[in-house]
Amino acid sequence: RINGERLWDSLMEMAKIGPGVAGGNNRQTLTDADAEGRALFQKWCEAAGLTMGVDTMGNMFARREGTDPDALPVYVGSHLDTQPTGGKYDGVLGVLGGLEIVRTLNDLGIKTKHPIVVTNWTNEEGTRFAPAMLASGVFAGMHTQDWAYDRADAEGKKFGDELKRIGWVGDEEVGARKMHAMFELHIEQGPILEAEGKDIGVVTHGQGLSWTQVTVHGKDSHTGSTPMPMRKNAGLGMARILELVDEIAWSHKPHAVGAAGHIDVYPNSRNVIPGKAVFTVDFRSPDLAVIEDMEKRLRAGGQKICDEMGLTVEFEKVGGFDPVAFDAGCVTAVRNAAERLGYSHMNIISGAGHDACWINRVAPTAMVMCPCVDGLSHNEAEEISPDWARAGADVLFHAVVETAGI
Amino acid sequence: RINGERLWDSLMEMAKIGPGVAGGNNRQTLTDADAEGRALFQKWCEAAGLTMGVDTMGNMFARREGTDPDALPVYVGSHLDTQPTGGKYDGVLGVLGGLEIVRTLNDLGIKTKHPIVVTNWTNEEGTRFAPAMLASGVFAGMHTQDWAYDRADAEGKKFGDELKRIGWVGDEEVGARKMHAMFELHIEQGPILEAEGKDIGVVTHGQGLSWTQVTVHGKDSHTGSTPMPMRKNAGLGMARILELVDEIAWSHKPHAVGAAGHIDVYPNSRNVIPGKAVFTVDFRSPDLAVIEDMEKRLRAGGQKICDEMGLTVEFEKVGGFDPVAFDAGCVTAVRNAAERLGYSHMNIISGAGHDACWINRVAPTAMVMCPCVDGLSHNEAEEISPDWARAGADVLFHAVVETAGI
Ligand SMILES: NC(=O)NCCC(=O)O
Ligand SMILES: NC(=O)NCCC(=O)O
Repeated sequence: RINGERLWDSLMEMAKIGPGVAGGNNRQTLTDADAEGRALFQKWCEAAGLTMGVDTMGNMFARREGTDPDALPVYVGSHLDTQPTGGKYDGVLGVLGGLEIVRTLNDLGIKTKHPIVVTNWTNEEGTRFAPAMLASGVFAGMHTQDWAYDRADAEGKKFGDELKRIGWVGDEEVGARKMHAMFELHIEQGPILEAEGKDIGVVTHGQGLSWTQVTVHGKDSHTGSTPMPMRKNAGLGMARILELVDEIAWSHKPHAVGAAGHIDVYPNSRNVIPGKAVFTVDFRSPDLAVIEDMEKRLRAGGQKICDEMGLTVEFEKVGGFDPVAFDAGCVTAVRNAAERLGYSHMNIISGAGHDACWINRVAPTAMVMCPCVDGLSHNEAEEISPDWARAGADVLFHAVVETAGI
Repeated sequence: RINGERLWDSLMEMAKIGPGVAGGNNRQTLTDADAEGRALFQKWCEAAGLTMGVDTMGNMFARREGTDPDALPVYVGSHLDTQPTGGKYDGVLGVLGGLEIVRTLNDLGIKTKHPIVVTNWTNEEGTRFAPAMLASGVFAGMHTQDWAYDRADAEGKKFGDELKRIGWVGDEEVGARKMHAMFELHIEQGPILEAEGKDIGVVTHGQGLSWTQVTVHGKDSHTGSTPMPMRKNAGLGMARILELVDEIAWSHKPHAVGAAGHIDVYPNSRNVIPGKAVFTVDFRSPDLAVIEDMEKRLRAGGQKICDEMGLTVEFEKVGGFDPVAFDAGCVTAVRNAAERLGYSHMNIISGAGHDACWINRVAPTAMVMCPCVDGLSHNEAEEISPDWARAGADVLFHAVVETAGI
């Protein structure tokens, strides 16, 4: 069993870096706070006797040697970056849970056959630079590094420049590492495990995602002196498309979700009818055909709304991944571990995207989930209990060690 | 007749300060660009032999003496501040038209009985600090200066601090000046004069305005892992209220308009369901009862929408003024001037708010309007012809001189 108190203390220590405004965290990717979090993780890894490698996307790989010089490593990890108003556990539990495995192995003096590598993937959240899971996506060959470097944040700063600025461009080629397997522990970020009273989610699938950035063009004009029939109100066109997004998602219930989290109007002045609205629609489903249907209906319906209002509209896909079925062997290792340790468990589909979803394309991969209070995540009030964290890390420990061999 | 070329040259000179990104201006109130515009206006006033007074709201008063020491001045002016993506003429034409009157009187060696005071009112636009016409509102006793100083911009900077920062806190008590009359020349900002082929709008009324800031509270949560029935999507609640605003305005056609120009959602991240949406609804009508009806329906309907969605909502009135009937004598002076000069003219109701709307409460006031291309304003592409500017300033000149007496 892992040391639950040590894990919790490390979680609380990391949460001091990039504090939020309401008890959570704002440690967005490639900010100074991200750099500080990385340095702390590196310090802990070195103290645990691990060797750090960093690739040119800033992904961090802390290695504990195995006994078989020819064996590929088992990877374990997640991400340390957060939402602007994010929680203390989303991602962090998976990275520090990986570190806790290694610390426990050290305590017990256990050597594994395969090396174990604890990983922090860069820019999982995708809040500052779309898309999410950017660096694991490059690792898995889904994007080129040049394209990733060119992603810009809301202020126009580029990913590549910001990575350099915080000093975390490593020397390893991205994706050159070969993996025996990869495991990711993550909080559920949804309400199912808590509602069902289960300690552990054995993640069999991950739902797919589609992000479409919609730009509606109207005509800025005076809110007072422009007659109603002459208006080209891009903000109103956006409002109608947001209603459509909700309708489309409900039409596939319970197999789909949809919303827009990012919304900007221009020039954003009280007495100017918006001449432009830019927003990102997030559609998800475990069924690829449903995602494709939703995308199609958004484009056709959004076009129709704008045509009727004398507006023009552009749609750009800015992120997405197909639904994932995790590796049967790795999933079984997770289920066996939960069973062996006597934790209640159930199969679950991940509602969120994870680095594991990309890595599953290049290595056998699975995920362990633990509950979170009220299913709340991407909120500073995100909460889990120390017992949930401990159970999740215990299952991760056993699944990893079983896979790495003793 | 005024010197149309000199007026046009001054307009183009002023437009160099605080250039926009598309040929217009971004000279928002109390920015460095505003300070530069004020300094240029002051230089021109001094060159024309005027004496500058500045009050504690930063309102500028450039005085040309009259022949009767007991006579109250005739005021003429508008504002030099602009929208973030504003035009070159909105407000500026009224200030520089006033200056052109004085320059013409100087050229002709004419002395008026009443002094003439050319005025630049601070923060007419209300884009940076709500409400619009803030400083003329304090002058007219509608707001206290303390309240005005406490208005904050989007970054939390206070009006009072910013006025001090740019060095334009004057020593005169606001509203202490007494006026014989006030005239304001302004572009129409709507399509009526151009459509009717008239040179001049004789402004008999101004429509009233109501600004309601709406804050919808939901719950930030994950766009992927939060099931549809558990969502409290403040952005979707906002979208439904925006649709309601449009419906309400159309229901009073053609006597009302409504829209929201200012829209922000929080935390504004692609994969976070908005936990909060803040936006400002702008309703206008020449009929006070219609404005009151619209406000009431917004509050009741918005509350109902949010109740049904499990959201909470707050409504705050952040600006407003009642419909205005301008002074009959001053309106007649404008009509007579247009008639005498042979310009085609028509009565018109101002769709926008103007400093004249507040000043009308403390002094006999009227406005002169000239057409603008396609009725477009609050847009960098705002355009007028030099002939329209000349005609407007000519009518202003004759109305002011008739009222000031020779
Ligand atoms: N786990 C998580 O919140 N990842 C961010 C990517 C997503 O939006 O699903
Ligand atoms: N004239 C003008 O655009 N004033 C700004 C206040 C308003 O929105 O009417």
